[in-house]
Amino acid sequence: MSDKFFERERLLTFTQNVFTAIGFSESDAATAAEVLLMADMRGIDSHGVARLSGYVRLWEAGRLNANPQMTLIREKLSAGTLEADRAAGLVSAPYAMKVAIEKAKKSGSGWIAVKNSNHFGIAAYHSLMAAREGMIGFAFTNASPLVSPFQSKERMLGTNPICVAIPAGNFPPFVSDMATSAAANGKLEIAQRAGKPIHGGWLLDKQGNESRNPADLKAGGALLPLGYSGENGHKGYALGAMVDILSGVLSGASFGPWVPPFVAFLQPKPDQPGEGIGHLLGAIDPEAFMDKTEFLDRMDLWIERFKAAEPAPGYSEVLIPGEPEYRTEQERIKTGIPLVEDVLQDLTQLAEKFGLGL
Amino acid sequence: MSDKFFERERLLTFTQNVFTAIGFSESDAATAAEVLLMADMRGIDSHGVARLSGYVRLWEAGRLNANPQMTLIREKLSAGTLEADRAAGLVSAPYAMKVAIEKAKKSGSGWIAVKNSNHFGIAAYHSLMAAREGMIGFAFTNASPLVSPFQSKERMLGTNPICVAIPAGNFPPFVSDMATSAAANGKLEIAQRAGKPIHGGWLLDKQGNESRNPADLKAGGALLPLGYSGENGHKGYALGAMVDILSGVLSGASFGPWVPPFVAFLQPKPDQPGEGIGHLLGAIDPEAFMDKTEFLDRMDLWIERFKAAEPAPGYSEVLIPGEPEYRTEQERIKTGIPLVEDVLQDLTQLAEKFGLGL
Repeated sequence: MSDKFFERERLLTFTQNVFTAIGFSESDAATAAEVLLMADMRGIDSHGVARLSGYVRLWEAGRLNANPQMTLIREKLSAGTLEADRAAGLVSAPYAMKVAIEKAKKSGSGWIAVKNSNHFGIAAYHSLMAAREGMIGFAFTNASPLVSPFQSKERMLGTNPICVAIPAGNFPPFVSDMATSAAANGKLEIAQRAGKPIHGGWLLDKQGNESRNPADLKAGGALLPLGYSGENGHKGYALGAMVDILSGVLSGASFGPWVPPFVAFLQPKPDQPGEGIGHLLGAIDPEAFMDKTEFLDRMDLWIERFKAAEPAPGYSEVLIPGEPEYRTEQERIKTGIPLVEDVLQDLTQLAEKFGLGL
Repeated sequence: MSDKFFERERLLTFTQNVFTAIGFSESDAATAAEVLLMADMRGIDSHGVARLSGYVRLWEAGRLNANPQMTLIREKLSAGTLEADRAAGLVSAPYAMKVAIEKAKKSGSGWIAVKNSNHFGIAAYHSLMAAREGMIGFAFTNASPLVSPFQSKERMLGTNPICVAIPAGNFPPFVSDMATSAAANGKLEIAQRAGKPIHGGWLLDKQGNESRNPADLKAGGALLPLGYSGENGHKGYALGAMVDILSGVLSGASFGPWVPPFVAFLQPKPDQPGEGIGHLLGAIDPEAFMDKTEFLDRMDLWIERFKAAEPAPGYSEVLIPGEPEYRTEQERIKTGIPLVEDVLQDLTQLAEKFGLGL
């Protein structure tokens, strides 16, 4: 079955209307819709409108607050903590990044930890807010536990992304937005639909043995950390752990195996060590290190040189992190956003539920 | 042949005397020696006294300044740039971290980029300076190009480490100090000495094909980025690239394939885009986010819970990042530091050259 294509504006308006229907302010609904649509435009389809019904279900379960009173509960010149009051991360993370950028303008850097939040969509949206201001943006979040530490078979960490966006002069920004697991959940789902085995080093089954059957994740297995290869695996574990601590421990949110699940049909574990999901948003202003024009020129040279690196056999070019997503975005500006049947059904049901046109 | 064991104090004094002999101030020589000896104590033998003769050769080649005039050439409240005047990174990085910690005490975070520097030893030394002050410490550096970007066969990046140290209450700090390549150079050397093939996903030969022959690196091959598995490899590439940009582009140092080689027998490439090697040192004060005692308690809980994670088949426990190195340190306090014959010869030659007792 072929995908149907939808113009960005049409899906944006619809998404905004759904958030408004469940009680978001106009402004929060607009921000949340922008975050989801950026995922769809950049080809990160798992994090776009495909998740809209998930946020609605979290709201129905009373775990997402449509009208949060977000408060900076602690603050210094270049750092602080935001209590998100169970806001959608789609709203709290951009709010926190705005504060981080303001702090970076004054003092050179700004770091805002967020607690009592929910899933923040694609990390790249938040980092790119800083890049648009000529700053280096960082976004980290913890997430529902699916990944086992090295030498463990227990789900202890989320796919905890590390995201950085760095502005350039003539080129689009350098954007790296990666899960710290070997593979994203989405890759397993694609393999499962296609009935194909997955790559080695991605998954443990419930007993803790390496598996190439994608169905073993839902059967109680665990994703493996980035760089896992039997005897190795400590690096991806350490990166995911760092993200968990920066996002969860530092903010006052929950962390590790306690992080509340995104899916509303699963209850958060008892004895939570903190509140909700945690994020860390950061901005570093190159102007604090050198003249901004010089920095942007140097980034252009960096990008030019890396694009000119000699390709390995079988490849015709070397890409800059963020370039594949940028190309998808340019393409989808022309073609619109392709939606698979499942997602389209999901959106149609939301339209009916709230009496909205899709 | 079995290793000989040396007491830390003895090697520390000797190392300090060598640095003094080539013109370091007493205080700089003491710092540089501390950095190298921490590597030996933590079992990172490739970065300890084994490198001492390398620093001496860099000084002989006129590429390392024993009496640098280090200057903060740009500064805001929470960020700035240090011109290291060709100092050893063993000296400039601790200097920069001290400034970062001072800034973090006042404003919540501090980030100092360093240019015109040299190899800074183990990153963990610098991050742990912050952890000892109850802060989260970060250390990044670029390094001589050995690693190919994903889809490339050209040496464009160093093993560019990401290092973070996070203090806890009752436990030793969480320390993650990792190369962003799949394997460190040292692992290839061990395999080569043992005449064994290396793991897949670590190395390309000169033609850009995956190789399991460790000798192919010196024959013009390239190390592969963390998480490389044929179709994947973009994550390790993006992490190494991020470190290169934060360390090199942001500071005004050289970057990418231009980074000057550590070995003195290789000349830096012409048309350098900046000066020397670059680092970024950062400190984030948890006190800016919550009460410090609360943060340390939360870290203890994090560590306790992860140590209690269920081991995978074949393992008896789950370790916290930094725990293996901490254990080695505790052991070597008792046993002393084992030196292989090559390193011992190297030190003996240095002793003769400078008329010092080893």
